[in-house]
Amino acid sequence: MEKVRDIVKEGMRVGNEDPRRIIHAFKVGLALVVVSSFYYYQPFGPFTDYFGINAMWAVMTVVVVFEFSVGATLGKGLNRGVATLVAGGLGIGAHQLARLSGTTVEPILLVMLVFVQAALSTFVRFFPWVKKKFDYAILIFILTFALISLSGFKDEEILDLAESRISTVVIGGLSCVFISIFVCPVWAGQDLHSLLASNFDTLAHFLQDFGDEYFEARVEAGDYKVVEKRGRNLDRFKSVLDSKSDEEALANYAEWEPPHGKFRFRHPWKQYLAVGALLRQCAYRIDALMNSYINSDFQIPMDIKMKLEEPLRRMSSESGKSMKEVSISLKKMTKSSTSDIHVVNSQSACKALSTLLKSGILNDVEPLQMISLLTTVSLLIDIVNLTEKISESVHELAYAARFKNMMRPTVYSDSGSIGRAMPIGSHEGDHVVTVLHDVDTSSNNVDNSLVESSQNSCHHVAIKIVDDHSNHEDGEIHIHTSLLEDVKRNDRLH
Amino acid sequence: MEKVRDIVKEGMRVGNEDPRRIIHAFKVGLALVVVSSFYYYQPFGPFTDYFGINAMWAVMTVVVVFEFSVGATLGKGLNRGVATLVAGGLGIGAHQLARLSGTTVEPILLVMLVFVQAALSTFVRFFPWVKKKFDYAILIFILTFALISLSGFKDEEILDLAESRISTVVIGGLSCVFISIFVCPVWAGQDLHSLLASNFDTLAHFLQDFGDEYFEARVEAGDYKVVEKRGRNLDRFKSVLDSKSDEEALANYAEWEPPHGKFRFRHPWKQYLAVGALLRQCAYRIDALMNSYINSDFQIPMDIKMKLEEPLRRMSSESGKSMKEVSISLKKMTKSSTSDIHVVNSQSACKALSTLLKSGILNDVEPLQMISLLTTVSLLIDIVNLTEKISESVHELAYAARFKNMMRPTVYSDSGSIGRAMPIGSHEGDHVVTVLHDVDTSSNNVDNSLVESSQNSCHHVAIKIVDDHSNHEDGEIHIHTSLLEDVKRNDRLH
Repeated sequence: MEKVRDIVKEGMRVGNEDPRRIIHAFKVGLALVVVSSFYYYQPFGPFTDYFGINAMWAVMTVVVVFEFSVGATLGKGLNRGVATLVAGGLGIGAHQLARLSGTTVEPILLVMLVFVQAALSTFVRFFPWVKKKFDYAILIFILTFALISLSGFKDEEILDLAESRISTVVIGGLSCVFISIFVCPVWAGQDLHSLLASNFDTLAHFLQDFGDEYFEARVEAGDYKVVEKRGRNLDRFKSVLDSKSDEEALANYAEWEPPHGKFRFRHPWKQYLAVGALLRQCAYRIDALMNSYINSDFQIPMDIKMKLEEPLRRMSSESGKSMKEVSISLKKMTKSSTSDIHVVNSQSACKALSTLLKSGILNDVEPLQMISLLTTVSLLIDIVNLTEKISESVHELAYAARFKNMMRPTVYSDSGSIGRAMPIGSHEGDHVVTVLHDVDTSSNNVDNSLVESSQNSCHHVAIKIVDDHSNHEDGEIHIHTSLLEDVKRNDRLH
Repeated sequence: MEKVRDIVKEGMRVGNEDPRRIIHAFKVGLALVVVSSFYYYQPFGPFTDYFGINAMWAVMTVVVVFEFSVGATLGKGLNRGVATLVAGGLGIGAHQLARLSGTTVEPILLVMLVFVQAALSTFVRFFPWVKKKFDYAILIFILTFALISLSGFKDEEILDLAESRISTVVIGGLSCVFISIFVCPVWAGQDLHSLLASNFDTLAHFLQDFGDEYFEARVEAGDYKVVEKRGRNLDRFKSVLDSKSDEEALANYAEWEPPHGKFRFRHPWKQYLAVGALLRQCAYRIDALMNSYINSDFQIPMDIKMKLEEPLRRMSSESGKSMKEVSISLKKMTKSSTSDIHVVNSQSACKALSTLLKSGILNDVEPLQMISLLTTVSLLIDIVNLTEKISESVHELAYAARFKNMMRPTVYSDSGSIGRAMPIGSHEGDHVVTVLHDVDTSSNNVDNSLVESSQNSCHHVAIKIVDDHSNHEDGEIHIHTSLLEDVKRNDRLH
């Protein structure tokens, strides 16, 4: 009784984790029913031997080919179908070749052919690219070739066997593929896409919280629950560390899938793996960060930590925000450069940090006390650098996948367009936008001193944007010349 | 032509990488030949229908069940055999149940039973422990149950079908298992064992070389080849980063394997995974180390680095030696405590480092310049701590696997045994051994002042040991009293 209850409980957990599993189970049942009904109501009627052999192959195909995702099902189905065809043809050829050599040599020759074919094919299965995509095809190839060339049938019977085997495989395979695609489909590509976005979310979450965590006073030793909860929250990033095999499997399946939803033909699934690998590297750094922060023997006093609080917090939170933006634009499948501005911000925080360190703020601190702090510094610098690489890699992905271009709204002053706005998050109630001068301003009669004053070609302007940025596609923002004066004054605000 | 040459070349590479693959290919061919000959020379003769159905199942079983390692083959064979038996029994039951309900309801009831069974079983496949070990059994269960309950045969025919299916599965499975075990067996357990030892080797190699690498002058920018070669050598550790899935698969297969070689029944394969996980953590640290060392924007001047050279070199090389010793004792399957002494040494180097840092050796250095150096320091401290954990974990493994106990040679002075020697590597031509006073010395008339002087209960003695330690099993080393005087004097040598 106890055991049954445990199993039911585990079943509920497994089902809750991903309800599509329950649907998948019903789909497999449905496919079996469809195929077996097909053979039940044949002209031969249910109670003939015919059901025995042919329905067997069809039922077997369904059970073996039907996988969780469309891509996996399609891949296995195609592997099985093509391999059956090719091996069937070659098997018949081998049979006829053997027949030419007379009845005594025939069986020996056939067995030898099967031996050579099986050994060669088995060896080919070790080739990495074969193992990755065509392992199942080779298995079915060995099987079908051996079955057809060893079966001691006469030629007509063999053609019959080959034909019925191929037709049953096709019927079984097609049922699987149709049910898999048209009844609540599970697309491996969509899953890969969501997995990547959720990995971005996880790391963004960690990085955005890390500052609070690091600079908050440590909890008293007795307060067990707080420590535990904190650990759980911050430990989520560990799932990213082990995501490699999942990502590879999904990308592998996704390549078999037809265009679906927002994913076109030849969607760059491989690029997802490249982005995923960079994210994983970032997770390795975070792992080291957590380790040096939690386990360090040389804990640094809070007052020394505090000296670097501002730039460290910004480095961490801005990289986090950049990842959050990437995650959002991935989910929407839009090209967005909002994340870039966070990358730039995190890099400028890096520079601020190095200025601060150069200023001698830590000169009185003992090196021993600095170990943990400077390790955090160095790992965060790594993370900022990786964030830039990740952002570039995502841009490549967006380009290759032809994501929708989310244009930044043009900013107009009374005297004409002065550039494009990129929101960089809300700041004291207002929205802060950066005006980039990528619009040719020379043709406009804009206050030239303004443009020249911004040598790094970007301003931070604090203006109120009423709507959300995402509604501004190709939109325009008009700001009053008086505001542009503010721009000049606030130029060094950030 | 070009393509064929490429494929042949790749075949050579795949074969050279692991020649057992070629043997495996021949073994699969052999198994097929054995099974098909068995059916060819039956009383029914080769050219009957009998071959058709039954030999099919046998051939299919061989092709599907024969895997690279014994464990995988055995696991699949058992899964297939047991699932066929159980599903066969239940299928016959379902058939008889349906027959009771009359001819009109019968097919509907049967199809419904198949539907429920397939859906339930498919769902159960998502349970993690089922997916890990019994996925194939459930697949075969669904298949056989559907085949037997849907086949429209009469009762005797069904018993016939069930019996022939079971016997062919058993014949095919047994051929695979026998050939897999008795013809050049590939043991997954042995592979896992070797993989772990080689991972230890890889990391040991890195750590032993890291000191040389880190403190050597950087190569000039132009010298491309040197940089490249160095990169290749130091990049080997990356294979450890991704070893998780391989280790898990091998451990999974190894659990199906019977005792073989030095591996007894219930060998603690799970503990290999625990050790492997710790090793991987160590590899993550090494990855961060390499990154901070190669990519750092703030390169530290060599003269500052040099100040910490001695302890840093020792921390790295002693952790490396400890791993090397673990790798050796794993390969020999002996309990050895030689690695412990290296752990102790690396920890004492840690202490020396912290003393050095406390002494204010870096007080004049700018914090900015220290970032990379202190990150290296912190990561090496991490690695030393991990090395201790790894060593403990390996001891647990050695205990659970009942490795042979490799006794340390007893050291005798003229006045009797004074303890056991543990070599800690050669030092200026001589072998340095540590004498541990785990032998009860109170009963001997040893110079007591000597024993008392060693408060941490271990000495370092520089004596010449002629043979290699490994030949000293339960051996004895006699040292002259005059040497013991040396011991006293050199007590603080290390």
